Amino acid sequence: MPDLFWPGDHRAGAAMTDAALLAAMVEVEAAWLDALVHAELAPPEAADTLADLVGPADLEAIAEGAESSGNPVTELVKLLRARVGERNPVAKTWLHRGLTSQDVLDTALILCLREVFDQLRREIDAQVAALAALARAHVDTPMVGRTLTQQAVPITFGGKAAAWLDGLLDAAEQVRVVAAGLPVQFGGAAGTLAASTEIARLRGVSDPAAASVDLVEAAAATLRLSARRPWHTIRGPFTRVGDALVGWCDAAGHIATDVATLSRPEIGEVREPAVAGRGGSSTMPQKRNPVLSVLIRRTALSAPMLGATLHTAAATAVDERPDGAWHTEWATLAALGRRTVVAASHLTELLSGLEVDTARMAATLAAAGEDVYAEQRSMVKVAEVEADRDAYLGISALEVGGATERAQEFLDARK
Amino acid sequence: MPDLFWPGDHRAGAAMTDAALLAAMVEVEAAWLDALVHAELAPPEAADTLADLVGPADLEAIAEGAESSGNPVTELVKLLRARVGERNPVAKTWLHRGLTSQDVLDTALILCLREVFDQLRREIDAQVAALAALARAHVDTPMVGRTLTQQAVPITFGGKAAAWLDGLLDAAEQVRVVAAGLPVQFGGAAGTLAASTEIARLRGVSDPAAASVDLVEAAAATLRLSARRPWHTIRGPFTRVGDALVGWCDAAGHIATDVATLSRPEIGEVREPAVAGRGGSSTMPQKRNPVLSVLIRRTALSAPMLGATLHTAAATAVDERPDGAWHTEWATLAALGRRTVVAASHLTELLSGLEVDTARMAATLAAAGEDVYAEQRSMVKVAEVEADRDAYLGISALEVGGATERAQEFLDARK
Amino acid sequence: MPDLFWPGDHRAGAAMTDAALLAAMVEVEAAWLDALVHAELAPPEAADTLADLVGPADLEAIAEGAESSGNPVTELVKLLRARVGERNPVAKTWLHRGLTSQDVLDTALILCLREVFDQLRREIDAQVAALAALARAHVDTPMVGRTLTQQAVPITFGGKAAAWLDGLLDAAEQVRVVAAGLPVQFGGAAGTLAASTEIARLRGVSDPAAASVDLVEAAAATLRLSARRPWHTIRGPFTRVGDALVGWCDAAGHIATDVATLSRPEIGEVREPAVAGRGGSSTMPQKRNPVLSVLIRRTALSAPMLGATLHTAAATAVDERPDGAWHTEWATLAALGRRTVVAASHLTELLSGLEVDTARMAATLAAAGEDVYAEQRSMVKVAEVEADRDAYLGISALEVGGATERAQEFLDARK
Amino acid sequence: MPDLFWPGDHRAGAAMTDAALLAAMVEVEAAWLDALVHAELAPPEAADTLADLVGPADLEAIAEGAESSGNPVTELVKLLRARVGERNPVAKTWLHRGLTSQDVLDTALILCLREVFDQLRREIDAQVAALAALARAHVDTPMVGRTLTQQAVPITFGGKAAAWLDGLLDAAEQVRVVAAGLPVQFGGAAGTLAASTEIARLRGVSDPAAASVDLVEAAAATLRLSARRPWHTIRGPFTRVGDALVGWCDAAGHIATDVATLSRPEIGEVREPAVAGRGGSSTMPQKRNPVLSVLIRRTALSAPMLGATLHTAAATAVDERPDGAWHTEWATLAALGRRTVVAASHLTELLSGLEVDTARMAATLAAAGEDVYAEQRSMVKVAEVEADRDAYLGISALEVGGATERAQEFLDARK
Repeated sequence: MPDLFWPGDHRAGAAMTDAALLAAMVEVEAAWLDALVHAELAPPEAADTLADLVGPADLEAIAEGAESSGNPVTELVKLLRARVGERNPVAKTWLHRGLTSQDVLDTALILCLREVFDQLRREIDAQVAALAALARAHVDTPMVGRTLTQQAVPITFGGKAAAWLDGLLDAAEQVRVVAAGLPVQFGGAAGTLAASTEIARLRGVSDPAAASVDLVEAAAATLRLSARRPWHTIRGPFTRVGDALVGWCDAAGHIATDVATLSRPEIGEVREPAVAGRGGSSTMPQKRNPVLSVLIRRTALSAPMLGATLHTAAATAVDERPDGAWHTEWATLAALGRRTVVAASHLTELLSGLEVDTARMAATLAAAGEDVYAEQRSMVKVAEVEADRDAYLGISALEVGGATERAQEFLDARK
Repeated sequence: MPDLFWPGDHRAGAAMTDAALLAAMVEVEAAWLDALVHAELAPPEAADTLADLVGPADLEAIAEGAESSGNPVTELVKLLRARVGERNPVAKTWLHRGLTSQDVLDTALILCLREVFDQLRREIDAQVAALAALARAHVDTPMVGRTLTQQAVPITFGGKAAAWLDGLLDAAEQVRVVAAGLPVQFGGAAGTLAASTEIARLRGVSDPAAASVDLVEAAAATLRLSARRPWHTIRGPFTRVGDALVGWCDAAGHIATDVATLSRPEIGEVREPAVAGRGGSSTMPQKRNPVLSVLIRRTALSAPMLGATLHTAAATAVDERPDGAWHTEWATLAALGRRTVVAASHLTELLSGLEVDTARMAATLAAAGEDVYAEQRSMVKVAEVEADRDAYLGISALEVGGATERAQEFLDARK
Repeated sequence: MPDLFWPGDHRAGAAMTDAALLAAMVEVEAAWLDALVHAELAPPEAADTLADLVGPADLEAIAEGAESSGNPVTELVKLLRARVGERNPVAKTWLHRGLTSQDVLDTALILCLREVFDQLRREIDAQVAALAALARAHVDTPMVGRTLTQQAVPITFGGKAAAWLDGLLDAAEQVRVVAAGLPVQFGGAAGTLAASTEIARLRGVSDPAAASVDLVEAAAATLRLSARRPWHTIRGPFTRVGDALVGWCDAAGHIATDVATLSRPEIGEVREPAVAGRGGSSTMPQKRNPVLSVLIRRTALSAPMLGATLHTAAATAVDERPDGAWHTEWATLAALGRRTVVAASHLTELLSGLEVDTARMAATLAAAGEDVYAEQRSMVKVAEVEADRDAYLGISALEVGGATERAQEFLDARK
Repeated sequence: MPDLFWPGDHRAGAAMTDAALLAAMVEVEAAWLDALVHAELAPPEAADTLADLVGPADLEAIAEGAESSGNPVTELVKLLRARVGERNPVAKTWLHRGLTSQDVLDTALILCLREVFDQLRREIDAQVAALAALARAHVDTPMVGRTLTQQAVPITFGGKAAAWLDGLLDAAEQVRVVAAGLPVQFGGAAGTLAASTEIARLRGVSDPAAASVDLVEAAAATLRLSARRPWHTIRGPFTRVGDALVGWCDAAGHIATDVATLSRPEIGEVREPAVAGRGGSSTMPQKRNPVLSVLIRRTALSAPMLGATLHTAAATAVDERPDGAWHTEWATLAALGRRTVVAASHLTELLSGLEVDTARMAATLAAAGEDVYAEQRSMVKVAEVEADRDAYLGISALEVGGATERAQEFLDARK
């Protein structure tokens, strides 16, 4: 599935593709059917893995059919019933019983997002390690600090990397929290699980409502997701996913903006890793464009609005299933998810091979001369004490220490 | 190219697909090469239509290769050169001469957007006609007007349709203006057309800069687009496209929100056209969901943020080519373009077959009783004149007359 | 400070006003000065509470003066120095030493946001209690559930209230987490605390960098905020505030949208609390507009974009202080903060007095007839078991139980 | 009315303040009353200018009272009636007759926006003149062109200024079109003008509906606005205002981003105008921060989301008056309007005094050496013709000529 409109899109692999969503929907139906059978609400003969019933070849038909009901589940269930019916008529009867389209689609999206988080977290681990190494390596590399575009006072490149690292770890913690709590959606037609409860009642189960809750927990366990009460119109689970992904994109965008800026030839303090053919221009061979930064910035500039779309959908949810707000979430999550994974892969590559020109940093600082020590001189006047000039780097080394320690704790907690 | 995440996506056909973009990029290269040859800057043997050199089978390779330079043009040019070289080595030399990637991609996006506008305008024509017919048919159909969700005073359904029509025509006029002025982008490496001007100079042309301007005009004429000075960092042409598309989505969203609301069974004044299998639910056969409205609303809820992304890109453009802001536009335009076309197709269908339950409207108005005439009674007191009660419909009929007349003028101007 | 553009704005009181920000900035300067003195970096005579030096009468001058440096701190410090100098010249010398404008403004904004969170959390407590009461009171109140605007299957109003409650608690937990971790910003000119470290060094402190870190911790303790490493260009603290506030607005918007919908006279299942003069119309006395819902929805429709603005600022931060991205946060946080508090006050009032028309709910359900039991009948066929008809309410009562229990835990944890 | 959160806010003067809105609402009421009297629908004794009835001292009461109905008009009308009644009881009876709150507020907002456009257009005229002068002055000032942050080929600073100018003129034309068509809103309770039509009918007017239309035209003429059919739920007039203002902010943001970038000391090709005290830092006296650019960028980064809020409101309008979408527009328009005017004032100042360091530009170009002529050398190979090296500036001079000519036409059309 090429995407000329988003170079590098292939790095996201199958994450949040049509095929992944299809597979996830089938997985959800299978987990529920399995729960029905194990709870003895459906007869044992209804058991079926639903394996090999549909595949990529069905995508086009399902996508087109999805228009009638407004979502792809109805069409998928029709197809699954027809095909499973040929090998297992009882499964045909029991498939999807008690569920509503939103249950299947929301849970499938969550499964797809889990894959996004898995990929993202692998990249984050690598980024944290790379940044910690950069920060440590340059704990004593002085450079000029810049505020409002102008040279201010000295900093160290290690301190700058430590700040990037702190930003990344802030985002990583949000990602970890959200990824750890991804929930299933099982509520039935209007969020009451009335159909499965009814079946339990008809089957003579003593506490039919509790049986429905058990079904949710069983299916959640199968899918390795959290159980929770239905959230058909409570869209926090998706807005929190969005906020966490956008938060990561912010951290990445900040780093990429810094790298693009410091890569300007007039500054020249860092360079993206050299890769044959990367960032070149056919007629301007001297150019070495910071392509990774540029592509990461592209994501960071668009992610906030994708997050805002999810929030707008949440804020306008109505009734027991929203009339359009729900439907706008799917492609928004897909775009946000894929773009984040692509940017994460780019950032790992960027950080892992970033070239730091410490000589250029030193030269710029030297050229800045006394100006960047003006504040230091003021302090001498304020303190009314003279002393030998020092590097005026303040807590830079402590910042590196603190951030890299935090990084280590983060990486240790992953194990 | 199925899209499970956006049911109905297939209605947009090839508009803004990878294949369409690829074809458009080749069309741009061909137009420029043709201009070079006709201006006698390139030798006559360089002439080549570039037909049949690349196609959908190349998409994957181009998409993956696009990552190195950050855009798909470099990779495409490499491929085109390799292949045209086999049949025409001179064309290989002259292909893309004087252009930069942004020239080809921006102009190709404009070509793709023209297709979007063409499809949208066909739908708008049908919508305007359908709405004018609705307004006229119901010029005398009273119903209750509602403000802040509560029943206020009587209106007519014709008057409501006339308001929808006015909103649609406002949007349509923006669409027409923007569609009429879609420009080419030809500026060369840094917007100065230095390379083509250099060639003209080397060829001994007396006014080489004017020759470059002529090239732009010739290529623009071939592509049936407007010539304009380079806009590599002046992104108004894309934000205006965005504003026009979002403006149409607003108008459509407003109509869809009204239809969804009036379709509520407790109100029941309109129903979406009945289509076998549409809007049904397997286990709740009584349901007739307003699927078209729901799907249109999905677009209307997400379009404003896509527009905001384009504006953010424009506002942060820098240097002679932006470092990420440009790259975020492409997929944003593609999503906005396709979604708009899909929603337009849905709205045409919705308006063309909208069922209006005039009896229900009358019954609700009757049930509202004297309450909705309270304002009328106040006026009697204010005017200190009594008269027979009338329908209290104010200028409703004039609104229908005015809006339908405007519709007719709009449709006439299309011819 | 009236605000005709945002009715109800006065409910936010002083939160995030100019006067509050001014007071907060002085509080920050005072805490830092106090820390300098206590650490014996500044002489004991430098101690000054900075009380009564500036006030609302200075706002205009500070606001206008703020333009020169681009932020209000420089002007404030000038004023404070001039005035404190008259009573304490040593304090004049030591005031603001080691700080940068961003330290003072960011920390002051955090203090203002704490006030927002305090107000919001008081409202949330009341909302949670009100919703839990509503859910419990209506655990057995049947009504029709609606999906995609159409009647689906029965639910209970208690179950609906429980869903609102779950959404609110989700948001409340985010609010609690973020409010608990609000950090100070103390970094000095470029985030290295070089000036305070220099003073410590000049004073002969054995570990000057550690002394700076101690200063931050002391000032943070005084201000009852968390200490953390500088975050001049790591804007997670503000984006997380934004996400938490927007998340609450989502939950409120969802409730308000439901109430506005159910308040439609054709549905008439709930009514906002009756307050004399509220929601009326002079010439249409029958109207009772759901004004609270309308005003809450206003906030919910605008909050996501304010959140997106904060994320965009975070994503484009650069250098050691951003060149515009920082400056766009202030008014954005102020608008988001005040609007949220106003909406919170409205929601408490709405939930505390919501009128539930159980008879109308029952009548609508009865009128829906057999249609809403179609799914139930299917289950009978699927289960191949007949039984007496029951209410088909599934786990509604369990949902009420679960959500209200969660509410109780939430409220208990507050104590 | 100071605003610490938005330094420079005072530059917008009274535009879109509470006081301005109050005055505008009174102006609208007065124009309508005048129209009623002149049409002889109200008796001659009802004539009243409504002058001196309310003022800034009433703002607080109106703002607080606005909460009951959700908008400030009801409260204002109550106050106006009470006060005018003391001097003219007939005016008291006729005031606001036939209008609804939305008529008064929407039209008053339009009047306030006209003031915004007036201020903006005066600034634009100055900006166009300043940019044209810059472009002409530097038509032969070579500098290096930069793409994706890297040095590419030579350009001229005149050409860069011409591009800024083209972007500004694009925006200015949108502004001009929108400003020229600002409409009144007069529709009565549900957009049918039923009340005024009823009065005309009771008065025995032969065509009462036409009389209502005449009223609208008369009041529009008094207010110097365009007449149009009611647009209570058709929000194009406001979204187009938003798009035009955001479009200008984009153009300004692009210029400011370029200036901030080129002001970096490592590049140093331009400097903001030197103003005593501007952009300095107390402890870092060497700094000269590009404050104007920073403050303009702040606006450009937030404007797109304000525009998106207006579009979201438009897209979710429902019934004959929206239930929250309308209410979110007011403060959004106020923020967008004021910020744009402030930024416009800043941009005029920036462009009027921009310092261009032509020597530094030349030095950087020289230092770039042969690299930036690599493309030129390729052209020699392609053309197979050698010639003396030229400046490789392409159509730069023509761009300056074209853009400045367009600027002159724009300025001439103003007269």
